[in-house]
Amino acid sequence: MSNRRIGLWLVGAWGGVCSTAVLGLAALRKNLIDSVGLVSEKPEFAHLDLDGADSFVIGGHDIRKSSYWQSVSELHQRANIFDERLLEGCKADLDEWDKNIRPGTIYGSGPTISKLADWSDVQRVDTPRAAVQRIQQDLKDFQARHKLDQVIVANASSTEPPFQIDDSYSTIAKFEAALDNKESRIPASTLYAWASLDLGMPHVNFTPSLGASFPAAMELCQKRKTTTTGKDGKTGETLMKTVLAPMFKHRNLQVLSWVGHNIFGNRDGVVLDDPVNKASKVQTKDQVISSIVGYKPNTLVTIEYIPSMDDWKTAWNHIHYRGFLNTKMILQFIWQGCDSILAAPLLLDSVRFTALCQRRDEYGAPRQLACFFKSPMGTDEHDFFVQYAELVQYARAIKK
Amino acid sequence: MSNRRIGLWLVGAWGGVCSTAVLGLAALRKNLIDSVGLVSEKPEFAHLDLDGADSFVIGGHDIRKSSYWQSVSELHQRANIFDERLLEGCKADLDEWDKNIRPGTIYGSGPTISKLADWSDVQRVDTPRAAVQRIQQDLKDFQARHKLDQVIVANASSTEPPFQIDDSYSTIAKFEAALDNKESRIPASTLYAWASLDLGMPHVNFTPSLGASFPAAMELCQKRKTTTTGKDGKTGETLMKTVLAPMFKHRNLQVLSWVGHNIFGNRDGVVLDDPVNKASKVQTKDQVISSIVGYKPNTLVTIEYIPSMDDWKTAWNHIHYRGFLNTKMILQFIWQGCDSILAAPLLLDSVRFTALCQRRDEYGAPRQLACFFKSPMGTDEHDFFVQYAELVQYARAIKK
Amino acid sequence: MSNRRIGLWLVGAWGGVCSTAVLGLAALRKNLIDSVGLVSEKPEFAHLDLDGADSFVIGGHDIRKSSYWQSVSELHQRANIFDERLLEGCKADLDEWDKNIRPGTIYGSGPTISKLADWSDVQRVDTPRAAVQRIQQDLKDFQARHKLDQVIVANASSTEPPFQIDDSYSTIAKFEAALDNKESRIPASTLYAWASLDLGMPHVNFTPSLGASFPAAMELCQKRKTTTTGKDGKTGETLMKTVLAPMFKHRNLQVLSWVGHNIFGNRDGVVLDDPVNKASKVQTKDQVISSIVGYKPNTLVTIEYIPSMDDWKTAWNHIHYRGFLNTKMILQFIWQGCDSILAAPLLLDSVRFTALCQRRDEYGAPRQLACFFKSPMGTDEHDFFVQYAELVQYARAIKK
Amino acid sequence: MSNRRIGLWLVGAWGGVCSTAVLGLAALRKNLIDSVGLVSEKPEFAHLDLDGADSFVIGGHDIRKSSYWQSVSELHQRANIFDERLLEGCKADLDEWDKNIRPGTIYGSGPTISKLADWSDVQRVDTPRAAVQRIQQDLKDFQARHKLDQVIVANASSTEPPFQIDDSYSTIAKFEAALDNKESRIPASTLYAWASLDLGMPHVNFTPSLGASFPAAMELCQKRKTTTTGKDGKTGETLMKTVLAPMFKHRNLQVLSWVGHNIFGNRDGVVLDDPVNKASKVQTKDQVISSIVGYKPNTLVTIEYIPSMDDWKTAWNHIHYRGFLNTKMILQFIWQGCDSILAAPLLLDSVRFTALCQRRDEYGAPRQLACFFKSPMGTDEHDFFVQYAELVQYARAIKK
Repeated sequence: MSNRRIGLWLVGAWGGVCSTAVLGLAALRKNLIDSVGLVSEKPEFAHLDLDGADSFVIGGHDIRKSSYWQSVSELHQRANIFDERLLEGCKADLDEWDKNIRPGTIYGSGPTISKLADWSDVQRVDTPRAAVQRIQQDLKDFQARHKLDQVIVANASSTEPPFQIDDSYSTIAKFEAALDNKESRIPASTLYAWASLDLGMPHVNFTPSLGASFPAAMELCQKRKTTTTGKDGKTGETLMKTVLAPMFKHRNLQVLSWVGHNIFGNRDGVVLDDPVNKASKVQTKDQVISSIVGYKPNTLVTIEYIPSMDDWKTAWNHIHYRGFLNTKMILQFIWQGCDSILAAPLLLDSVRFTALCQRRDEYGAPRQLACFFKSPMGTDEHDFFVQYAELVQYARAIKK
Repeated sequence: MSNRRIGLWLVGAWGGVCSTAVLGLAALRKNLIDSVGLVSEKPEFAHLDLDGADSFVIGGHDIRKSSYWQSVSELHQRANIFDERLLEGCKADLDEWDKNIRPGTIYGSGPTISKLADWSDVQRVDTPRAAVQRIQQDLKDFQARHKLDQVIVANASSTEPPFQIDDSYSTIAKFEAALDNKESRIPASTLYAWASLDLGMPHVNFTPSLGASFPAAMELCQKRKTTTTGKDGKTGETLMKTVLAPMFKHRNLQVLSWVGHNIFGNRDGVVLDDPVNKASKVQTKDQVISSIVGYKPNTLVTIEYIPSMDDWKTAWNHIHYRGFLNTKMILQFIWQGCDSILAAPLLLDSVRFTALCQRRDEYGAPRQLACFFKSPMGTDEHDFFVQYAELVQYARAIKK
Repeated sequence: MSNRRIGLWLVGAWGGVCSTAVLGLAALRKNLIDSVGLVSEKPEFAHLDLDGADSFVIGGHDIRKSSYWQSVSELHQRANIFDERLLEGCKADLDEWDKNIRPGTIYGSGPTISKLADWSDVQRVDTPRAAVQRIQQDLKDFQARHKLDQVIVANASSTEPPFQIDDSYSTIAKFEAALDNKESRIPASTLYAWASLDLGMPHVNFTPSLGASFPAAMELCQKRKTTTTGKDGKTGETLMKTVLAPMFKHRNLQVLSWVGHNIFGNRDGVVLDDPVNKASKVQTKDQVISSIVGYKPNTLVTIEYIPSMDDWKTAWNHIHYRGFLNTKMILQFIWQGCDSILAAPLLLDSVRFTALCQRRDEYGAPRQLACFFKSPMGTDEHDFFVQYAELVQYARAIKK
Repeated sequence: MSNRRIGLWLVGAWGGVCSTAVLGLAALRKNLIDSVGLVSEKPEFAHLDLDGADSFVIGGHDIRKSSYWQSVSELHQRANIFDERLLEGCKADLDEWDKNIRPGTIYGSGPTISKLADWSDVQRVDTPRAAVQRIQQDLKDFQARHKLDQVIVANASSTEPPFQIDDSYSTIAKFEAALDNKESRIPASTLYAWASLDLGMPHVNFTPSLGASFPAAMELCQKRKTTTTGKDGKTGETLMKTVLAPMFKHRNLQVLSWVGHNIFGNRDGVVLDDPVNKASKVQTKDQVISSIVGYKPNTLVTIEYIPSMDDWKTAWNHIHYRGFLNTKMILQFIWQGCDSILAAPLLLDSVRFTALCQRRDEYGAPRQLACFFKSPMGTDEHDFFVQYAELVQYARAIKK
């Protein structure tokens, strides 16, 4: 293991996913947990120069004032996860890392997310440019203060409303112009992404928000020699879809309809309860089936906010398919997973692999990380097993 | 498409799986159905010299006197499958093929299966050798009468009790000696397999019974230049296991327990209701998970005979797994599939591919057909997607 | 069994529910089926003077031109129900009854339902009064032509949009005035109900539409000495809710959330796919839980149109509840029922009981029939077992 | 509330159910929880002279040396239930009550249960009489030391193997003779029951073991003026069966098959993993459906020990039923309940009601408590709603 010092800057730092990831990092440093759930700890990746838990320093932005202790305690109380002794064992690290969390920007977050902002120091600026500059100042301070060899920015904040890009997103020049324009509509996720890539820092977009998924940002990656991955961690129902759809395809069974109903009750749910924000989520969840089977079955996805469920996302899927001799048959599954627990290790995995990619001079959006995302950048491949085989093949190609 | 005439000789000819396969062949000949459910009809195999529906002549053995019309009518009535017009359209072919069905042997079938034998002409012989000779006579008559270029024997009869082979199964010489010995214990499935392979006819074992899965039979394949595949069609719950277990493995999620309860009510169920016969089934269904994940979770499989279910096999699986930070989560699925409908196209697929393998001089047990079987011969690979990739790779390697 | 001749006039006569009910009546007359599914055939009601299958003559209104044979054949094809021999055995009766079906009115049906009307003779009139008069003329002709002792009108047509009544629905006088007013907004279901009650004919509203559920209609029942029951047959998911909610109540388990997702694909689904029409359905389905447990859990109900499901309504319910020592637990159920098959016998049951009530001079909305309806008229009791106990008690009070 | 002091003597005192009940009592005394889960706290029973949480003193027998703190901490760790602050708040009471727990008898427990006995002081005696006497001495000491007005004995220990009674169980005289006979086969549950009833102390049998369910014990109740209730708390899957079976009955839907598979992993599971012990459980779970619907559907019940599940008992039930016009339909449910959490309040409920019955001079087995038990003594009524109505009617008949 190297002596590198890696800064992990989290957008939505005290949210459920980031707090769980940070707790996990602390627990790994103290050997309080094993590596279950972390793909990057599998034997097939053991020879890669991935950063160990000890290498990381945590910092980040949030728009709600909180602390890691408060976040993980709430998760413990409400969702009935984490052992108290594990929490106690990690408290010192969590408290230390809290000092690196700065007020984020609500510029471009949309009304539902902005309403959640309760941190009085939250960045209220007049232009996109000003927002980017304040974010970059925080990132540079973080790197300097902690003498970090590499800083990676990962966004796991709440889902923004769907967003249609226009021509101003097509080149660096046009986008830079837009940053100076008060009238420009640029989502917060994109301001964070641009700020980090422009500093040559890799960016992971763990949300369905726009982030860096537009041409100018790809151009910026090449210019600044950096890497970006996303979008939207493939944690639960969608993972199942990209696992099962290939089965139906390979068996030549025709999917007639695929209905997926999701319920959950964490803070993300409050945001998704706004139909506008929900739309982006449903969209990324719904496209994968058609993409895999090669035709358009009747698909339906709902996500509903049911507070009693807290962080336990439960999905019922009803798959109606036609087999030999026109016979209709049914497969149903019920997924009962804890959202933060599923997402946190994938966030760490994608951070570790993305940092590696940059160090290996793989700029832009590397397609071999598709298996971690619902809407992978750099590829249209959604079949989970094809995606995973690409990751393994990539690892094998790297000499031991 | 070639002008070859292919004889498909079915053991358990009037059973649910074979009758459905034969109905499907007839319907394909009449263009009454599309190719949904048939893997071998997928575009990635279109360039292979596989035999079309028109190439096949059906014959077979059974121990219960019936007819195709009676079998498919019963399935229609009890399991509520098949359209009446489709049945009518296929009747002529079914009636014609009935003429090629001969009384089978009950030598070595075990008491539960023997009790089902109601055909007075059923073969009652004194030695394994005599049984093999009578089977071979039927096969040779079939080939001669119909001027067949190639005959393939496929066994989809009821599951036999588990069977431990001894040293007499280790070489051709020892097995030939055993055939002449009245005291030898040789299961019927193996008599059929030996009879066909010894004539140079490929043999598909679609059941969990012993069939040709022993060293002397492998030696015989090389000697007679023929091919054998099996065992036990991977149709439903086990298919799901070999699809989902890789997901848990790749995500580094630890499977704690995997419980599978199956209920169904067709004639196979009557046989499986005998705990001895059931044991072989449970065995082949249970091993796949450990084999894929690489450790031994707590697994449980039951198969129960519930007459009201008829041919609709319903499986509930409860998968308890551990994720990041020691969190236990749950995935459940409910599979409601029609047994014959799922099995019949796979039987036809494995027959088509096996016949091709023999013609391509691939003798023994070709591992690239593993995706069709619960206990694939020639490989320990159970991951469905790895299996399927091998089949596709095999097809690609064959020049168009 | 009496020699009464009973006319059953069906609104939505050729729809799935009515066609299935009529097929069932024909099959009962021919002794082709047993009484399974018919509550009114249970031993506890054997001593009541209920009308036998032989007593009924069928007539009705529809806005789509069809025939019973076509309707039940379509159901047979699409939903895979009914035995062909049963269909053949009932054809003569069905064809005979077709002759009594008249074009209905689309006055007040709303745009989604009106679009379905493809019968050129459908009643297009200028005032509510004219619509009522044409309906009444058809009813009187039916009674006269078939020399009927009693005519009952039952509405099982498609669900109308929700409707808020105003003061004109408060008394007979005000409603009669509204009938003459071209500007009055009166739903078709109410025109049919008023037409029948005004002739002294009992009216069963098997739908969630307004029908006779307003004060002026109750007054009319008393004046014309007739009976009305409804609303909305309690066939599937809602039946389950009114069975399970009492369990949670009696065990003092606190329901935190109750989520119900329904999918189905019959013609009703096309209508419910219009969000306006769906609203009435969701409303009647959602109120029952709070009414039974006595507080407001977080409830959610969706109904979605998934064509491949045809008449098979599948409901997933996720019930999250709190037990002793603040422990959250879960009950889930999956209901896979055939809509027409579940509804048809309840329609016949409510018709038989309603006809009896009128003959026993029980005018208005008798509360003892609540167990058949999602929104029972005449009572707020939703607990299925309390409802059923009231029906049994009513039957017991009638001397044998 | 009275000033009575009530001793609750628990057999299997430190087991999961008893420990949870005791924790609940302590929490109620400290107002740390509300009354959710306790039937006896419902408004319809508020006027009854039931004993409050403050009235109880806990004592009991066990064969494994443990403590309440250890038991509830283990449940907290393994099954992820109870809040730490609640545990802390109850510790003083739990520690105090530990002092009243005495080593139990393993005489007659059968080999599987005996193996679990790790308390060196466990009662090893030579005759049933000696076991009864030692139990009675402990009970009398308990009553005297704590100056108790009434002592109730409740058995929630592990399930014993099924037991066929012989003539020696028919009268007090014969049973007393058997107690003196070294050769007599008398289960431990019956020794406890006899010991308590013989002292005039009411006895609740919360297990499927024999306990007091034989004629001599009924005679003893009358002679000693005491009350006994049981058998086997109706907590989960069986509760559901007695809720749903009446629905099918009242709707005249024919249950074809009812399959129930249960998995769980607590200490009871270790005992039930012995097929002999399991047999009694399956027996009491299986009879209820036929008893309610009045005919014998094809039923199947399994209970399997899956350690990872701990105290979370999960049941999948598949109910296949026939509706109108011979149509087969399906209802499935999945019950995910925490065994101790469901059982503990019912144990307290039955204790409170049983103590009341004795004080009201209702000796023997009062049928109005049937709703709490899988195999209710004193009645064959299994319909949950009929049972509950009887309890409410009983309460109403008691003047306020």
